[in-house]
Amino acid sequence: MKKLVFLLVVFFNTTVYAQKQEINWQEITPGIWEAVIGNPEEIDLLRIAEIQPRTDALQKLGKLPFPDFLKTSSADINDNKTYLRFPLQKEEQLFGLGLNFKTVQQRGTIKNLHVDHYNGQDDGRTHAPIPFYVSDKGYGILINSARYLTVYAGTSVRADSKDFPSERNRNDPKAGWEAQPYSDAVEILVPAIGVKVYVFVGKTPLEVVQRYNLFNGGGTLPPKWGLGFTHRTPTLFTDKQVLKEVAAFETKGYPLSFVGLEPGWQSTSYPNSFVWDKTRFPQPQQFLSELRKKNIRVNLWINPYTGSKSPVYDQIRPYTSSHTVWMGLVPDFTLKPAQELYKKLFTSEHLKMGVSGYKVDEVDGYDNWLWPDVATFPSGIPAEQMRQVYGLKFQKMVDSWFRGRNTRTYGLVRASNAGASNLPFVIYNDYYDHRDFITALCNSSFLGVLWTPEARSSKTDEEWLRRMQTVCFSPMAMLNAWADGTKPWTYPAVAEPIKQVMLLRMQLLPYLYTTFAQYHFEGKPPVRAMNLVEGFSFTTKSETVGLNSTDNPYGLALKQDIKDQYMLGDYLLVAPLFAGEKSRKVILPAGKWYDFYTGKLAGAGEVFQITPGMDKIPLFVKDGGIIPLIPPCLKSPANETILPLTVRHYGEKEGSWNLYDDDGETFNYEKGAYTWTRLEVKKDKNGLLKGNALIAKKNNFHYKNIRWEFMTTSK
Amino acid sequence: MKKLVFLLVVFFNTTVYAQKQEINWQEITPGIWEAVIGNPEEIDLLRIAEIQPRTDALQKLGKLPFPDFLKTSSADINDNKTYLRFPLQKEEQLFGLGLNFKTVQQRGTIKNLHVDHYNGQDDGRTHAPIPFYVSDKGYGILINSARYLTVYAGTSVRADSKDFPSERNRNDPKAGWEAQPYSDAVEILVPAIGVKVYVFVGKTPLEVVQRYNLFNGGGTLPPKWGLGFTHRTPTLFTDKQVLKEVAAFETKGYPLSFVGLEPGWQSTSYPNSFVWDKTRFPQPQQFLSELRKKNIRVNLWINPYTGSKSPVYDQIRPYTSSHTVWMGLVPDFTLKPAQELYKKLFTSEHLKMGVSGYKVDEVDGYDNWLWPDVATFPSGIPAEQMRQVYGLKFQKMVDSWFRGRNTRTYGLVRASNAGASNLPFVIYNDYYDHRDFITALCNSSFLGVLWTPEARSSKTDEEWLRRMQTVCFSPMAMLNAWADGTKPWTYPAVAEPIKQVMLLRMQLLPYLYTTFAQYHFEGKPPVRAMNLVEGFSFTTKSETVGLNSTDNPYGLALKQDIKDQYMLGDYLLVAPLFAGEKSRKVILPAGKWYDFYTGKLAGAGEVFQITPGMDKIPLFVKDGGIIPLIPPCLKSPANETILPLTVRHYGEKEGSWNLYDDDGETFNYEKGAYTWTRLEVKKDKNGLLKGNALIAKKNNFHYKNIRWEFMTTSK
Repeated sequence: MKKLVFLLVVFFNTTVYAQKQEINWQEITPGIWEAVIGNPEEIDLLRIAEIQPRTDALQKLGKLPFPDFLKTSSADINDNKTYLRFPLQKEEQLFGLGLNFKTVQQRGTIKNLHVDHYNGQDDGRTHAPIPFYVSDKGYGILINSARYLTVYAGTSVRADSKDFPSERNRNDPKAGWEAQPYSDAVEILVPAIGVKVYVFVGKTPLEVVQRYNLFNGGGTLPPKWGLGFTHRTPTLFTDKQVLKEVAAFETKGYPLSFVGLEPGWQSTSYPNSFVWDKTRFPQPQQFLSELRKKNIRVNLWINPYTGSKSPVYDQIRPYTSSHTVWMGLVPDFTLKPAQELYKKLFTSEHLKMGVSGYKVDEVDGYDNWLWPDVATFPSGIPAEQMRQVYGLKFQKMVDSWFRGRNTRTYGLVRASNAGASNLPFVIYNDYYDHRDFITALCNSSFLGVLWTPEARSSKTDEEWLRRMQTVCFSPMAMLNAWADGTKPWTYPAVAEPIKQVMLLRMQLLPYLYTTFAQYHFEGKPPVRAMNLVEGFSFTTKSETVGLNSTDNPYGLALKQDIKDQYMLGDYLLVAPLFAGEKSRKVILPAGKWYDFYTGKLAGAGEVFQITPGMDKIPLFVKDGGIIPLIPPCLKSPANETILPLTVRHYGEKEGSWNLYDDDGETFNYEKGAYTWTRLEVKKDKNGLLKGNALIAKKNNFHYKNIRWEFMTTSK
Repeated sequence: MKKLVFLLVVFFNTTVYAQKQEINWQEITPGIWEAVIGNPEEIDLLRIAEIQPRTDALQKLGKLPFPDFLKTSSADINDNKTYLRFPLQKEEQLFGLGLNFKTVQQRGTIKNLHVDHYNGQDDGRTHAPIPFYVSDKGYGILINSARYLTVYAGTSVRADSKDFPSERNRNDPKAGWEAQPYSDAVEILVPAIGVKVYVFVGKTPLEVVQRYNLFNGGGTLPPKWGLGFTHRTPTLFTDKQVLKEVAAFETKGYPLSFVGLEPGWQSTSYPNSFVWDKTRFPQPQQFLSELRKKNIRVNLWINPYTGSKSPVYDQIRPYTSSHTVWMGLVPDFTLKPAQELYKKLFTSEHLKMGVSGYKVDEVDGYDNWLWPDVATFPSGIPAEQMRQVYGLKFQKMVDSWFRGRNTRTYGLVRASNAGASNLPFVIYNDYYDHRDFITALCNSSFLGVLWTPEARSSKTDEEWLRRMQTVCFSPMAMLNAWADGTKPWTYPAVAEPIKQVMLLRMQLLPYLYTTFAQYHFEGKPPVRAMNLVEGFSFTTKSETVGLNSTDNPYGLALKQDIKDQYMLGDYLLVAPLFAGEKSRKVILPAGKWYDFYTGKLAGAGEVFQITPGMDKIPLFVKDGGIIPLIPPCLKSPANETILPLTVRHYGEKEGSWNLYDDDGETFNYEKGAYTWTRLEVKKDKNGLLKGNALIAKKNNFHYKNIRWEFMTTSK
């Protein structure tokens, strides 16, 4: 029998070798095409994410033609792998291809897309190795495979290329020899005998991303408390210590909307019991209620691996992997019984008691701290695929538990993948380079994932301030003190400006919440890399360098990206500073831009230098920009609270913006229980700007006394 | 038809899933067992290397039993991959697993063995990712696959492990939680439905390596000129500039045995023409003759990729890859016509003119600078396998060209793999960390490859001296000035001690040449990591460290290896210093050890500190050690030259050592044209040491006037 099987394989190899697969693009919804190549595998990313496209919103975005030049895309199946080729145009730039930390533009790079802890190199091993790229020519391509893909994003030169670069003699210094010759295609190796591929188009790169996010169900809309400030307490803190820390935030006047408990909340961890430690948390229910009374939520650290002290250990054993992680059993969550056991345990032990979310750790790797690729799972799904989807699947499960209770959650996760736009999780890691954290923030915007540049500790006052400032302009404003015990006021010299920026984040909640509503309803990412911004014309620049036998033996040109500034929502340009910097360069898109704090003109479509001092994070607002603010507050407002609203207008142009509101905690918005308010600024007959709020029908609307502030024209 | 094929695959997958493959070990020669698992692929490493085991020498090493505990090894075929498992014993240490640069002991690490330029991490991507490991328990395992293998070298913990570690609670500081729990197996993923595996045993780890090398045909024996000093001139040097540089070595009294010409010798390069540049080298034949008259050989830089200016371009086109490297065609050297075209061109253009060797560049990767994994080759061999064997195959070809002319060569290559022991190439790269270069030297000794810690340039005098010192105690003493134009005397403050160490290397040629003869005839590597040395008892130490949220969030114990000292041959312990160090620790194996320069006792089986000053590289000799020297000379002696020999004896013990000699340039030694001379030191009746040389039958013997020097007892 064995012999026969091998004969069949040989036959198969011979038959398929060099078998060209035609790509047959089928439009599945306006602006999105699917191609089925070969025999796609049963497990893929979108199936694990169980995406439900927002057909209505996609229809609204409208029809666009399939890009002509993509018709020369091709696929082959060879050596039991699928070889994909997508053409590139001259000067085309590519973005995405996994959550990268060093670079934004990805043309000319190679990625081995592989769920892993980010290790300092943009090589594809990262927390969200999403096989999706966005072109500045108005399209994006998603490879819906849960395998380790290798992507040559415009690096390879085929002998039969129609754009074959001309040979240059490196021995002739005047010949203009280039280390990286021109490549006219993205080539992708999928180690499987078939795959589904999607093309998303758009009039702009942002519209491509919108279609991608809407296809994945629209972006997640966090509960309002999720957008407040969060603090994670040291791992072995007791209930009393946590309550004391929470009280200190209040006393000192620092905002706090939810606290995170680290491994010590469990009786045993690494591997986990998933039950409360009775010495540190003798009465968890009471502890949670006490915090809830203060309008503070609780997030629990976990990793998914079950120790023998867990109540589900014996029952789940048959549904776990051949290999363990820190001696913990690794459940095969593609199996219903494994899902149900966790749902039951987590619901009774946490959700019913009032826990509001999780931090899902160690689903990424570091290789050593995950199952090996030789592991087997009872479902028969290979370890490789399991690794690519484990974090994604866990997010989906947690999401369903909370959905089942009509309560939103907002948590943290260390691994994700394609199809995650709609999942209420923010990615984080153990890496800690502040600049690279901001680059990741930019890159998250192409990929339908959220990222937090969490602050943990710092070497200097200045670094602490700069980190805390950017944290407040990110999807999750988090201080993670699990190992270091840091607090916002730990560095007294900067305690006050940190308080101010935390309060500013709270004031911006209506703007932030609406920005996330745009993510959900329109697919627009809350944070936006500059390359997604209309009127931003900077392209990646190359800089030639001299010969160096060691550091750069091929004299590879250095690339220059814009990765240290970004947009938060439609109007706010954030240009953070990093420790050691007194001044920085800001690149403004076309049109006039104004200083957020003063309303004064900052510049228009230009590059300029700023020297902003320590107290503030530089923020700029687009001409005609509308930014609503509530009064400074320490908690995210509860559903009962009605607050006065100040609506700021910047610049000289008329403008309008739709403010979103709902109950801030349930899924009733999916059934229409929300309000969009049109905030309009028009010039009156005297040419003076006037504001007007058009509230169609109040349905969960929490603002009163709308006051207009014309930051530029009235100051 | 397509449908049918896919159905067959599904059938295949289902059938093979969880299909246990028994491992049936067959003894193929004393101390070496082979197991055929599943259906091994046509292309494998040893087949490409065309190994010819030295059966006579293997027989002489004798019989040993198959290690009992290895009988529980197992194999499965799953997801079209082979999963291998080999048990580990408590306290066992593993070495090898590719040419690593940071660590020596490899238990507890994960490798993705992949031919690539070394990138600063011991992750398996390296120049010689040899799937072979040596255990200190006296065996070694080779996975003879040309695929990208993933090796979990004692990192994974199976749920059904018999040595399942006990759970520890990380929340309990006294529980002794460990980041890396005990793992009882090496597990290997081979992405193919079968593979051949070999077990090599030995009474010592050294004997394991000997069997491995002898199985591969025995180590390479370089020509005598190959062990002299070599200098690579700047890339655009003309013939006159090269001759002037050569003359400067002579005038200033620095040894030089062969020069290397970098890309500029070719009319065009990157891609290559492979023909001489008529402006820089108008009369190559005359240039080569002139150098040969001075007894200086020439090595040519190439990479294997053909440009349109090459005479073979049009003819070779049908035998090349779908993808190019720097626009050069990539020949498929598994095809006879491609081999023949290169042989013809290289023979007529280089070998016949008097070229003595090559530096084979860019066969490793950097990924960007190689064909992508989606490339296809006319032989049908997948790009992945081609990458793993390309450097190996090229070495084999060059070796055969020179063998065909009964002339030895000794060159450089940037990629190799298993089966290379017998190939006359030394690995080098663009990386440049001095300490890591020495670690690589240690690691090369487990793997049947040679490595040079070449010197290129330095930031300080001291660094230059320290680098040049270690270069002289390595398989190839090379200054690579291609980009920097450095010379041995570039740093005047250290020019004299550098001259002295270069001359010392020349004096040691008889010792070095014999050391390589041991490599060839007995399989003993010329450089030996301390872990291969008898009486060396240091084991890798772990050091626990404190909690750090960023740099080491799991508090992983730090390992401590001995990787900064090594043996050169049987007697010489080299303990180099690195820039910035005034003193260093030396670990001596059991028995007494003596200072090479003075003959004084240095210590015995102990760890001690030395502060040796700038002028010398610390060298220690084993008690009873015998080291033959010739007078200082500037070239490797020609075959005609007969030289006086000083034989040094160190310590107090009697001893004997076999000195090897032959013509130094042909393969006649393979037909017995050599001399082994037994150098014996015995005590006479008065207890005084006396030396005696027993020359059985002179066959190519180049020494006269043997003079004995008793370094310890007569000084």
